[in-house]
Amino acid sequence: MDYNYARRMADMKASEIRELLKLTEKPEVISFAGGLPAPELFPIEEIKKANNHVLDHNGGQALQYSTTEGYGPLRKWIAQRMNAQLGTSFDGDDIMMTNGSQQALDLSGKLFLDEGDVVLCESPTYLAAISAFKAYGCRFVEVPTDEEGMMIPELEHALKAEPDAKLIYVIPNFQNPTGRTWSLNRRQKLAELSAAYNVAVIEDNPYGELRYEGSFLPSIKSFDRTGNIICTGTFSKILCPGYRIGWIAGEAEVIRKYVLVKQGVDLQCSTIAQMVISAYLEQYDIDTHIRKIREVYRKRRDVALDAVNRFFPSDIKYTKPEGGLFLWIELNDAVDTVALLEKCLEYNVAFVPGNSFYPNRNKPNTLRINFSNMPEDRIEEGIARIGQVLDV
Amino acid sequence: MDYNYARRMADMKASEIRELLKLTEKPEVISFAGGLPAPELFPIEEIKKANNHVLDHNGGQALQYSTTEGYGPLRKWIAQRMNAQLGTSFDGDDIMMTNGSQQALDLSGKLFLDEGDVVLCESPTYLAAISAFKAYGCRFVEVPTDEEGMMIPELEHALKAEPDAKLIYVIPNFQNPTGRTWSLNRRQKLAELSAAYNVAVIEDNPYGELRYEGSFLPSIKSFDRTGNIICTGTFSKILCPGYRIGWIAGEAEVIRKYVLVKQGVDLQCSTIAQMVISAYLEQYDIDTHIRKIREVYRKRRDVALDAVNRFFPSDIKYTKPEGGLFLWIELNDAVDTVALLEKCLEYNVAFVPGNSFYPNRNKPNTLRINFSNMPEDRIEEGIARIGQVLDV
Repeated sequence: MDYNYARRMADMKASEIRELLKLTEKPEVISFAGGLPAPELFPIEEIKKANNHVLDHNGGQALQYSTTEGYGPLRKWIAQRMNAQLGTSFDGDDIMMTNGSQQALDLSGKLFLDEGDVVLCESPTYLAAISAFKAYGCRFVEVPTDEEGMMIPELEHALKAEPDAKLIYVIPNFQNPTGRTWSLNRRQKLAELSAAYNVAVIEDNPYGELRYEGSFLPSIKSFDRTGNIICTGTFSKILCPGYRIGWIAGEAEVIRKYVLVKQGVDLQCSTIAQMVISAYLEQYDIDTHIRKIREVYRKRRDVALDAVNRFFPSDIKYTKPEGGLFLWIELNDAVDTVALLEKCLEYNVAFVPGNSFYPNRNKPNTLRINFSNMPEDRIEEGIARIGQVLDV
Repeated sequence: MDYNYARRMADMKASEIRELLKLTEKPEVISFAGGLPAPELFPIEEIKKANNHVLDHNGGQALQYSTTEGYGPLRKWIAQRMNAQLGTSFDGDDIMMTNGSQQALDLSGKLFLDEGDVVLCESPTYLAAISAFKAYGCRFVEVPTDEEGMMIPELEHALKAEPDAKLIYVIPNFQNPTGRTWSLNRRQKLAELSAAYNVAVIEDNPYGELRYEGSFLPSIKSFDRTGNIICTGTFSKILCPGYRIGWIAGEAEVIRKYVLVKQGVDLQCSTIAQMVISAYLEQYDIDTHIRKIREVYRKRRDVALDAVNRFFPSDIKYTKPEGGLFLWIELNDAVDTVALLEKCLEYNVAFVPGNSFYPNRNKPNTLRINFSNMPEDRIEEGIARIGQVLDV
């Protein structure tokens, strides 16, 4: 049959990069390409016990349908955690559970975006946020960023140039792909500008808990005076991604709209997944667990930074992230990292070329390195191999 | 803030019915409103063992990210089951896992529908399919149905009147809301017409395994010669809905497109949920389990039919479904079932007024009764109460 797809499908192509990266599944390849947490840190035994507890005591409820909003006790826990760590003032009703924070992005697109609408984003920004929003036919305006986040005069300029912009999308902590963290001042300024120009903000925060040095900063939401800032979060990086449990948090009014959207999309998140995570949080100390993750990832980051410093050419720029999962490297202008990746694959080492993180595609000399999912010696070895290829 | 939503949100309102039905959560209410399976039939112990098996042997994999397509062994099982029961010829690669079959509907809308596109559906049809497709701005053309399914001359008439129609949406087994099953002849005719007019068909089949009498019929897909028929399925009704695991099955070419759409939407279904269900299917005999469900639901259906016959006025029409979860009742033209529901709630009994199942709203004298989620005596008592209200 000649399938007659929606117009949005014209833009939705299988990415060449993804095809290349399929080659990285071979065990001999050292892959810095994913964004995977380290599976050896998953609290498997504790999750097993939490699961058995739930099925022993509330099996019928756990395996049944439940509400679109999500499991009450878990939503309350999330609100309290966010309030303590991010300076927000949510309660459980301000939270809706999602299938990972990725779904929070898709639902945001569905809630806010008509064809042709503008999304302002950091340049570069999270690859799968670009896909999620683009499916609704939006246009991206990239706002230049530096070590402190979006550059505020440029943001204001963009807001003036696009008075009908619908969303500002940012990842203020250990950004994907750069690893950078917004300064306090920029957070406050973004909150002010978004209120002045009446644009909703999606404050995406999958990595915020993974801080390896420096102090935690209040969220952009904590400076929100008008209710236009919407937050996302996830258990994928602090517990495990396999359950696909994340959330969206915002004013009760906008959360009610998200609930309507999610109802039509998939009715609800997994009941048992939410109850197991909730039981885990009740029975174990997640802070002890997160400290363990931070310890391991901090060392891996240090090894990666040290190796980049030793094995890469001296004319590069790279970020020194205070947390999260990624380093971002800018090579000299002559290098095209897609070609570099092809060569690196011959040496059994992989990364993500940076161009895909720019919605309007214009920085072929950049690349992203993930350091969370590999032992230290492999990190060193892999980065040395990329350095060798760069040397040729 | 004055949220600036997408245009699609203008149509997406919290339904009054849903608000009314919130009252049914009180334990004293006998509610025929949901579509819930009976939780006392969930194989809780077996699922617990399957879960422990997965976490003991493959915990790291189960809690990690995995592919958008889904877990290989589960997809292969589904293909084999469909082929044996529905006369299809799928292999594992033709299956993509979804968050319940509801997500298969949303993804179908995203894949096929532009604003203003036409969806042909049975009249009446599944409420949440209407919501899922409507979010993409489509228009519905309702095709009249009788005891054998869509009326074929009317379907052909609609296809001629709407030559650009994008989708035909049908539930051929124990339809929601009517409980009706399509005849073999109508299945074959739909396959032929959809090929002749080059329109994709979504063959939604959440209830097919729940047959209480008569013989299983081959799927519409089994008559597909051009590849335009796409099937959905789910574990929600034969195992449990709490994991939110369903699927979509179709030609490899169209499934690749669904994968692109799902990637942007939520990356993947829960890894552990898929692996636990797969382990359950390997370690236990699901046919024995399904026979138990059929036995219980068959009796409940008989009690419900008998009670409707005894307690409802004689000028009504009602369906006598051979399987599934629902009866459909047409009262005399003067009755508005929304008003009836309000009165029934005073007597602590509830159902879903039928109007919501017509996308263009025009049958206020209809209602849907779910019989799967309640002991026999409560079914009898509840239907007697509705009968009393109708008598006043």
